[in-house]
Amino acid sequence: MWADLRPIGRNAASGGYRRYAWTPADTDCRDWFQAQAESRGLAYELDRNGNQWAWLGDPTAGDAVVTGSHLDSVPDGGAFDGPLGVVSSFAALDELRARGTRPTRPLAVVNFGDEEGARFGLACVGSRLAAGQLTREAARELRDADGVTLPQAMERAGHDPEAIGADPERLARIGAFVELHVEQGRALDLSGDRVGIASAIWPHGRWRFDFHGEANHAGTTRIEDRRDPMLTYANTVLAARKKARLAGALATFGKVSVEPNGVNAIPSLVRGWLDSRAADQDTLDLVIAEIEKAAVERGERDGIDVRITRESFTPVVEFEHALRDELGRILGGNVPVLGTGAGHDAGILSGTVPTAMLFVRNPTGVSHSPAETADEDDCLAGVTALADVLEGLACR
Amino acid sequence: MWADLRPIGRNAASGGYRRYAWTPADTDCRDWFQAQAESRGLAYELDRNGNQWAWLGDPTAGDAVVTGSHLDSVPDGGAFDGPLGVVSSFAALDELRARGTRPTRPLAVVNFGDEEGARFGLACVGSRLAAGQLTREAARELRDADGVTLPQAMERAGHDPEAIGADPERLARIGAFVELHVEQGRALDLSGDRVGIASAIWPHGRWRFDFHGEANHAGTTRIEDRRDPMLTYANTVLAARKKARLAGALATFGKVSVEPNGVNAIPSLVRGWLDSRAADQDTLDLVIAEIEKAAVERGERDGIDVRITRESFTPVVEFEHALRDELGRILGGNVPVLGTGAGHDAGILSGTVPTAMLFVRNPTGVSHSPAETADEDDCLAGVTALADVLEGLACR
Repeated sequence: MWADLRPIGRNAASGGYRRYAWTPADTDCRDWFQAQAESRGLAYELDRNGNQWAWLGDPTAGDAVVTGSHLDSVPDGGAFDGPLGVVSSFAALDELRARGTRPTRPLAVVNFGDEEGARFGLACVGSRLAAGQLTREAARELRDADGVTLPQAMERAGHDPEAIGADPERLARIGAFVELHVEQGRALDLSGDRVGIASAIWPHGRWRFDFHGEANHAGTTRIEDRRDPMLTYANTVLAARKKARLAGALATFGKVSVEPNGVNAIPSLVRGWLDSRAADQDTLDLVIAEIEKAAVERGERDGIDVRITRESFTPVVEFEHALRDELGRILGGNVPVLGTGAGHDAGILSGTVPTAMLFVRNPTGVSHSPAETADEDDCLAGVTALADVLEGLACR
Repeated sequence: MWADLRPIGRNAASGGYRRYAWTPADTDCRDWFQAQAESRGLAYELDRNGNQWAWLGDPTAGDAVVTGSHLDSVPDGGAFDGPLGVVSSFAALDELRARGTRPTRPLAVVNFGDEEGARFGLACVGSRLAAGQLTREAARELRDADGVTLPQAMERAGHDPEAIGADPERLARIGAFVELHVEQGRALDLSGDRVGIASAIWPHGRWRFDFHGEANHAGTTRIEDRRDPMLTYANTVLAARKKARLAGALATFGKVSVEPNGVNAIPSLVRGWLDSRAADQDTLDLVIAEIEKAAVERGERDGIDVRITRESFTPVVEFEHALRDELGRILGGNVPVLGTGAGHDAGILSGTVPTAMLFVRNPTGVSHSPAETADEDDCLAGVTALADVLEGLACR
């Protein structure tokens, strides 16, 4: 199962994955999901928002226990972020069958579409649409770097974009959603545990900083005549790191775009994207306000017009305590409970249905990189834990 | 003549030109050049390196007076940088004809290929190849951002890449080369002159800074576990500006490329290109050494491996004093003589043949930008001055 998925969308040069929503690599992953469902005799469904479902039992009976994750990737992402949850979900169903358990509630595996937001800039589009956290109208305005809109991309991949929108009836079927994910940090490695349970997702968001200056010749324009937005951008990158460090938060500029991006041209525009997260809302608000202030102040010095747009935001997610505690009971008392800075479809769904997450140990903590890894023994421990949870929730 | 050239390679959104070497826009410019030559009964030649020539008189007679410039552009460049020199050259020949002058030396207009280096990263490829300052082997290794090599690009545009290489016989025909160019600064505007004569081109070069870090998840990686090359890049941008300002030099990071360039991924690699120039070699050496030191020191702090490659370099060019003084005499004593930070084909040729440059006033000093401009009266004064120079050199 893992072997079939491994080569899809893998870039030979970087060794990383480029599985962006509604691209051919994404379609290959989707075909893989459907084949896995059908080979197990699970009822396959593609919902109006492009999320895929594989049902064991009656989808319409209600109170279902659903597990799964996503198959798309960030640019040059690792093999585990997303796919480990989907593969482990099918493997856990196989394990339940091997144990001879009899589910008393419907079970399903889900692959949420466009979780990473690598192509259209907004994360968790599939689950946001379903949960009504992204309107149909706003989704139709999303564009990739080539100007292709989300509806155009969906249509080219053979999915009807007219159908997208909130899907409350489908979510109402779910009694519990459990997402297994590779840990994106080293907490389990430091504590020496194979598997952990999520407590909360930090509030987090993306802000676009547009630094507007004046294009000019780099070899002839006097320093005092320049309005160079690269300087304001550079100063803001350093300010973001400092403000975040002092507040115990995270702030990262990982994406930048420059116009005209010529070696001998002072840029007219530098656009930088800030990703920032903190354990609580007040801290995050403070850090963002300080970074914005630093950018605007330096912009005044450099003659740069700074415009800041919040492109996405997710408030703190506290996973349901009752379900979280039940997972703890099922897995025994020693499983650590940990928070995470990463967003997930589970975070989106948690506003609508009882939701929990399991993390599998990441020995290096590295994620969103070809170097992302997990030991096979830990992955198998994750499958066992997920099977235990599904059995505990759905087979008693 | 100007009207025919104006729409070619113009980007509707930016209003700037994207005439990159061996692209369809470049081919259209070349077709325009050939048509201008043929409509005047000039003998058209395309040389082995893709430079175009239009001859009045016998090309092989020797001691020719050649004028011209280039038609390619930087990304979103202005209308004047390059084309003003070519258009003015044809217009000056028309003016000589109208005056009824009789050239005693051969005259030619030239369009040098790939002056800006916007596509393959090296400026003045056509003149460097001809002058033997770029070897055939090194030229064959040049690649654009899509991995297309210079020979592949030439071949696709219908030019035989096997033919490229030093062309001493062709350059030996030239007794004097005069390039007219829009000023890329405000010296003429400040002095109140329409036209000026070049004294020297500052030494200048391009350096590529590769900052290698470790890709990781921007939302989960602890600050102390990060090796984020964006920080080292940002610090180097600010250091470059400061070191240049203190030394009275110029240093600009106008181009950057990031891998993987995802909003929620700490980059594995940030690549920044430094353009730096100074009035003399010692100052430039000092500034570059200081910037390199700042990059490496910050890199050690950030856990970043910094690699620096000099991609191109042009030493100071002092235009031949005898020819420069002769231009001064022809144009009368009041024409100002000024230096420039910008590289030109004239700078390349000056190592091989007597070379001079004329500048036309730029009222804003803006260059390499859609906002680059020159007044029509000043452009006409440039044509008159160039015609005077050609008449003075070739018709007496």
